[in-house]
Amino acid sequence: MKRVRSDPIAVALSEDIGPGDVTTDFFVPEKLHSSARIVAREKAIVAGTQTGAEVFRQVDPSIHTEVVLADGAEVQAGESVVEIRGLARSILKAERVALNFMQRLSGIATLTREFVTAAGNERVKILDTRKTTPGLRELEKAAVVAGGGANHRLGLYDMVLIKDNHLSISYGLSEFAERIRKLRKARPNIRIEVEADRLEQVRTFVEIEGVDMILLDNMTPAQLREAVALRKHQIKFEASGGITLENVRRIAATGVDFISIGALTHSPRAIDFSLEMTHVGG
Amino acid sequence: MKRVRSDPIAVALSEDIGPGDVTTDFFVPEKLHSSARIVAREKAIVAGTQTGAEVFRQVDPSIHTEVVLADGAEVQAGESVVEIRGLARSILKAERVALNFMQRLSGIATLTREFVTAAGNERVKILDTRKTTPGLRELEKAAVVAGGGANHRLGLYDMVLIKDNHLSISYGLSEFAERIRKLRKARPNIRIEVEADRLEQVRTFVEIEGVDMILLDNMTPAQLREAVALRKHQIKFEASGGITLENVRRIAATGVDFISIGALTHSPRAIDFSLEMTHVGG
Amino acid sequence: MKRVRSDPIAVALSEDIGPGDVTTDFFVPEKLHSSARIVAREKAIVAGTQTGAEVFRQVDPSIHTEVVLADGAEVQAGESVVEIRGLARSILKAERVALNFMQRLSGIATLTREFVTAAGNERVKILDTRKTTPGLRELEKAAVVAGGGANHRLGLYDMVLIKDNHLSISYGLSEFAERIRKLRKARPNIRIEVEADRLEQVRTFVEIEGVDMILLDNMTPAQLREAVALRKHQIKFEASGGITLENVRRIAATGVDFISIGALTHSPRAIDFSLEMTHVGG
Amino acid sequence: MKRVRSDPIAVALSEDIGPGDVTTDFFVPEKLHSSARIVAREKAIVAGTQTGAEVFRQVDPSIHTEVVLADGAEVQAGESVVEIRGLARSILKAERVALNFMQRLSGIATLTREFVTAAGNERVKILDTRKTTPGLRELEKAAVVAGGGANHRLGLYDMVLIKDNHLSISYGLSEFAERIRKLRKARPNIRIEVEADRLEQVRTFVEIEGVDMILLDNMTPAQLREAVALRKHQIKFEASGGITLENVRRIAATGVDFISIGALTHSPRAIDFSLEMTHVGG
Amino acid sequence: MKRVRSDPIAVALSEDIGPGDVTTDFFVPEKLHSSARIVAREKAIVAGTQTGAEVFRQVDPSIHTEVVLADGAEVQAGESVVEIRGLARSILKAERVALNFMQRLSGIATLTREFVTAAGNERVKILDTRKTTPGLRELEKAAVVAGGGANHRLGLYDMVLIKDNHLSISYGLSEFAERIRKLRKARPNIRIEVEADRLEQVRTFVEIEGVDMILLDNMTPAQLREAVALRKHQIKFEASGGITLENVRRIAATGVDFISIGALTHSPRAIDFSLEMTHVGG
Amino acid sequence: MKRVRSDPIAVALSEDIGPGDVTTDFFVPEKLHSSARIVAREKAIVAGTQTGAEVFRQVDPSIHTEVVLADGAEVQAGESVVEIRGLARSILKAERVALNFMQRLSGIATLTREFVTAAGNERVKILDTRKTTPGLRELEKAAVVAGGGANHRLGLYDMVLIKDNHLSISYGLSEFAERIRKLRKARPNIRIEVEADRLEQVRTFVEIEGVDMILLDNMTPAQLREAVALRKHQIKFEASGGITLENVRRIAATGVDFISIGALTHSPRAIDFSLEMTHVGG
Repeated sequence: MKRVRSDPIAVALSEDIGPGDVTTDFFVPEKLHSSARIVAREKAIVAGTQTGAEVFRQVDPSIHTEVVLADGAEVQAGESVVEIRGLARSILKAERVALNFMQRLSGIATLTREFVTAAGNERVKILDTRKTTPGLRELEKAAVVAGGGANHRLGLYDMVLIKDNHLSISYGLSEFAERIRKLRKARPNIRIEVEADRLEQVRTFVEIEGVDMILLDNMTPAQLREAVALRKHQIKFEASGGITLENVRRIAATGVDFISIGALTHSPRAIDFSLEMTHVGG
Repeated sequence: MKRVRSDPIAVALSEDIGPGDVTTDFFVPEKLHSSARIVAREKAIVAGTQTGAEVFRQVDPSIHTEVVLADGAEVQAGESVVEIRGLARSILKAERVALNFMQRLSGIATLTREFVTAAGNERVKILDTRKTTPGLRELEKAAVVAGGGANHRLGLYDMVLIKDNHLSISYGLSEFAERIRKLRKARPNIRIEVEADRLEQVRTFVEIEGVDMILLDNMTPAQLREAVALRKHQIKFEASGGITLENVRRIAATGVDFISIGALTHSPRAIDFSLEMTHVGG
Repeated sequence: MKRVRSDPIAVALSEDIGPGDVTTDFFVPEKLHSSARIVAREKAIVAGTQTGAEVFRQVDPSIHTEVVLADGAEVQAGESVVEIRGLARSILKAERVALNFMQRLSGIATLTREFVTAAGNERVKILDTRKTTPGLRELEKAAVVAGGGANHRLGLYDMVLIKDNHLSISYGLSEFAERIRKLRKARPNIRIEVEADRLEQVRTFVEIEGVDMILLDNMTPAQLREAVALRKHQIKFEASGGITLENVRRIAATGVDFISIGALTHSPRAIDFSLEMTHVGG
Repeated sequence: MKRVRSDPIAVALSEDIGPGDVTTDFFVPEKLHSSARIVAREKAIVAGTQTGAEVFRQVDPSIHTEVVLADGAEVQAGESVVEIRGLARSILKAERVALNFMQRLSGIATLTREFVTAAGNERVKILDTRKTTPGLRELEKAAVVAGGGANHRLGLYDMVLIKDNHLSISYGLSEFAERIRKLRKARPNIRIEVEADRLEQVRTFVEIEGVDMILLDNMTPAQLREAVALRKHQIKFEASGGITLENVRRIAATGVDFISIGALTHSPRAIDFSLEMTHVGG
Repeated sequence: MKRVRSDPIAVALSEDIGPGDVTTDFFVPEKLHSSARIVAREKAIVAGTQTGAEVFRQVDPSIHTEVVLADGAEVQAGESVVEIRGLARSILKAERVALNFMQRLSGIATLTREFVTAAGNERVKILDTRKTTPGLRELEKAAVVAGGGANHRLGLYDMVLIKDNHLSISYGLSEFAERIRKLRKARPNIRIEVEADRLEQVRTFVEIEGVDMILLDNMTPAQLREAVALRKHQIKFEASGGITLENVRRIAATGVDFISIGALTHSPRAIDFSLEMTHVGG
Repeated sequence: MKRVRSDPIAVALSEDIGPGDVTTDFFVPEKLHSSARIVAREKAIVAGTQTGAEVFRQVDPSIHTEVVLADGAEVQAGESVVEIRGLARSILKAERVALNFMQRLSGIATLTREFVTAAGNERVKILDTRKTTPGLRELEKAAVVAGGGANHRLGLYDMVLIKDNHLSISYGLSEFAERIRKLRKARPNIRIEVEADRLEQVRTFVEIEGVDMILLDNMTPAQLREAVALRKHQIKFEASGGITLENVRRIAATGVDFISIGALTHSPRAIDFSLEMTHVGG
């Protein structure tokens, strides 16, 4: 299987600029300098500001950028987030790609903050999932933290999550426990979570040595409460499935440790930012 | 400036799998075969099906995939979109990445279809913008077409769009016309569009030789109608800014040729798909 | 299909230097500084000067380069084009690769200028083709512009050109027109050209809505003249095939809008440049 | 310094196809199969046939290709070189890139053969240089061998060539000999050549232990003859500079072992090939 | 910071083959087939067999390979590990790179097995470290598991290890605890370990909420025993520094949970493998 | 076959840092500066110092590094090799990767020096082999030179070595000589070596025109002496197989020109280096 790591900024610039920015090359004088600022056009929690600034510097290392509002801060409509100085051509080439990163990442941070506030419960952590945009996981997970949320596993490699599809490969309970034992032997420090759809499963899983956490999928608040009551050996509980801004407070009140929400990264509304040229010439 | 082209599928697999899928390696037998299908959990216009299928084949070239519903088709909740057969380990490793592509691209196609239907006017084309997800432009532009929309320029290289920030670099009209002439000389087949915020600008731009299209930014239906009335030499008009499912029909009725909508690609709601193992073993 | 974007300068340095420049490492003192200049050994139109200078800076970012003659200028034998200052080792490592770019790109600019001059007709544009050197298209297309020519499409993605091999896939005229209509719907701003070998085809194509341009392949001046006389709806005409410095003036006089010439990029004679060390030491 | 190895075929396909082949996607049915052949339109020595065939297979691994004439063979106008069967879309996408490789590489093989024939002297070898097209060195060096020539060093890493610019860094003769000794110690198996512009230098260099070969730059036949007469210890002599099809026989008669010619790779005329669809449908 | 993921097999083939395998191209007939086997020349625990086999398949996808002994098995001198059938040229090109992977990875597995055996204590796990060969971490960590060892963290991203250099950045204990709290909030599932050189530190660290594990660096068996006696809240203890085959049993007997050994991956002795052609021709 | 060149430093940083250094991000203040030095903890010949320093600069271009001891120098336990100043976070992120390069490369230089000293014979050169770590060949070959050894061929491309497996493809002697002639024609400057296991083979090979060198594999000192006595036409002799620090002096005394030793690069013991923070703050 081909696996490739690539800088998402370089990739985004490549797809936007391709063989060249014709407009800028023909309509902006080569040596013209300019100042500009990226302005929020609505209230939001900002994220991706360093990435946005980095886009300008990759287009032209001589561009000077200043991040005015750090990730996690609340911005008001009309406020500056990043300020830029340099060649006008370079600023205009970078503009759209920088905004594309910032609008999405700030959308994630803003939506996360809304869930954290709605949950209204410091003890429960709002988690993201692996339902991220292909190529942007690292950035999107950081935006969730900027919004006050917490990160579930980064990928398939840093935590074990045994889901329904794994469990449907039926081997008996002793075989299952044996496999957990073998995993513990090779990877003693990795956290192991198992998904449960029914309370009956929860009862089984809390007895298996090596299980650190149980994912309670699509359960009602009442079921979640029952599940939590089965807790043994410091096992943690995560609620997932169908969480909305309306029901998150009730879920949080059930005693679960974590609430994971795919929408944080798969369906945020983009925040509206624009680049304003503040001074041209000289 | 560093510019890099990379296969978004390989990148997405790399960020998800990293140094290895621990769960699958320890809990799924190496030789186990399985069948699976990707099922829509809500009504939608599908897109990204070929990309989803390709994810499985990149993880394991021996996997067999069949796209059951082509891009652009309407799927009902519970219907299959892609069917898969192969090693269970490979299917499970690919699952999330495949769904991540399909949920976003189908979200775009679905939202585009909603706008096309709301516009209710065959003559007007619903266009996307460059407000796409970094790294996914090619795929997202194809999803817009699947939804019945049309593509604006792909990037900075295949069309000229002179925007307010370019125009703020003030040189007089004759200098502007001279630059268009020079551009036409070097790139005779490229289409040239100019952005106008005010009717006065429209009056000027329709007189400049070489202008193919005018972008009417943030104008009211009344203004749009006036602008269209100024048309000369087959110049085309594009409306943009603040288009919603509510107002798109009124905009379409003004006589503009194109309506461009950033939200198609920056704020679609993800469509809910899941992978179901239909047969395991043998 | 694997598609890769890579910086042609980095690729060229890699293939030349490989695991190391043995000569320089053993025969040039590590700290020695030097000045050098790239000199034309024959009269030419220069192109690729920025690329040449960039080669030195990629080998060693501390090298200082100055482009003395901009692309498109005429250089006389013995004149400097680029001047360089920095570590002698770095200059010598970069020398050959820099010259390899400049000799070819200046060859293209020079040949283009010869054709433009021979055509002797401002109204007709001398176009390049896609017959470029693998890996160097962007640079070679810029060299054509430096020579006074114009660019045909950059690749298969930014313009449609329906050639004999496409047309040999015979479907009737109404099917053909329907496909053009469908293309226009999805990609309203792309230019569409059709290739014609016979006047009869020209007569058909000028009637099809959506055709912007007709390629007249391998026609005699008399045939070209007849074809041009069939012009409707502002359709443009391009002559191609068998164009030489001898016959280009006659072709240009037929009224065609464009003359495309593969030889500009596939068979230029390299211009002779050399690097002269002007000061060594200190 | 950034150094990158990349497959020139993948790079060439990427720059030609970019975000997609619009013509083929809209005008060629998806499932249509076809046969095609690449035909020479003039007499030539072919090279690059395997590369040309590989282009088709990279676009679509299901394409079947057959190389009909091996590299180094003489082809007559109208004869097939490569035959292809597969999806029409895939064949048309690959066509131009395949031809671009073959036209250039066959141009090199053909020009090399002309020089070999003109030299008319089996004992003397016609060598290429490092004046190759950036990104294509490996392929171009193979084309020289196909034409009957021989390869000089592949790059800066596999042989030492101490040129005027290295020598201008003046240290005395004993220092120079000492550096050759040190090089021999670390890299005992690498061949060492020194460039001489004057007979006086030849006299010096033949006495230095470790020198394997002397490059006689821009000398007349008479000077070359004198230089060869100074031969000691099996040192080899290479003539370079200003070699043409007219004077190569006289140079070859001077007794030098090698004649190196930059034009082989920097200024070949492209050979005219075309792709003919021989059967479409079924 | 530039970060790149690349396939170590492709990289290794590239550095070995470079612009081509001259010997094979000139001395092995193009169509000749052969069988071969990779044979251990000494007793060892094998690892890297799949990687070795993959090298052959990357050189030539038509090569057939069979892994005869799975990773973790003991091989005797003279026994086959991998068997290969295919074109002789392809086998010979891949040979050295395949052996280079297998000799190193089997060396690691063999050394790990020696430590596991010497420790003689099932309860204690023998861990690797991040002292791996640049570019081979994933493969080397798998070889440790093949030898019966366990993996410490894979890199800086999947576990926290606060070492002396971090601690030397002195802030008081409350600040330290606060930072652990903040980390727990953002990354609730990551394991946190702290390095201790002195028992006094151990006493402090066992009291800090959120600490999962303590690294006891360079302590004597007596000190280790004392440290372990301080255990609270299920904290785990890891011994590191100066572990040898001679002292590992005594360390294991102190009650620590883990013993980490850099030498497993930084100083294994390569295992001697060779490739034998078993049948040539046909 | 996929062939990829990649910077081993960037690869190593990517595999170590992955999606981020959690420890540093949470426990080291963002703006804190620090000084540090890399110290040898045992006597050794250093190598890889420039690579080690480059690791820090790649992590953060604003870091200042100074190489205190050049490659090839002897370092005593406790002495500094590289000194570093910059942001504490950057230094700590780079630490392990820098040490991983230096510990291995210095191990190679140290072992090479031991063999050179043990051979005790200036006339005989101690050669490395292609048994290098995948991905590190260039660096490891430089470390051998730092230790006083010499480089055998860099890869399959810069020298010909006809080994037993090539010879087992039996064609008669005249065919073999003919192939050498053909190789000489295409690649006149490449060195050709043939492997011999028996004296009888040596007798044959010394008669073949074009053979530059004979590899005497696994021969006793007595056999080596006999082989050397057969020398003709300046052919060089290389001894290989089973060379140890104990027997190298006896082998060197047989009159062979080269002794090649795989262990130099496949089984060096890593040298112990550590990074010490010397000043933190300010």
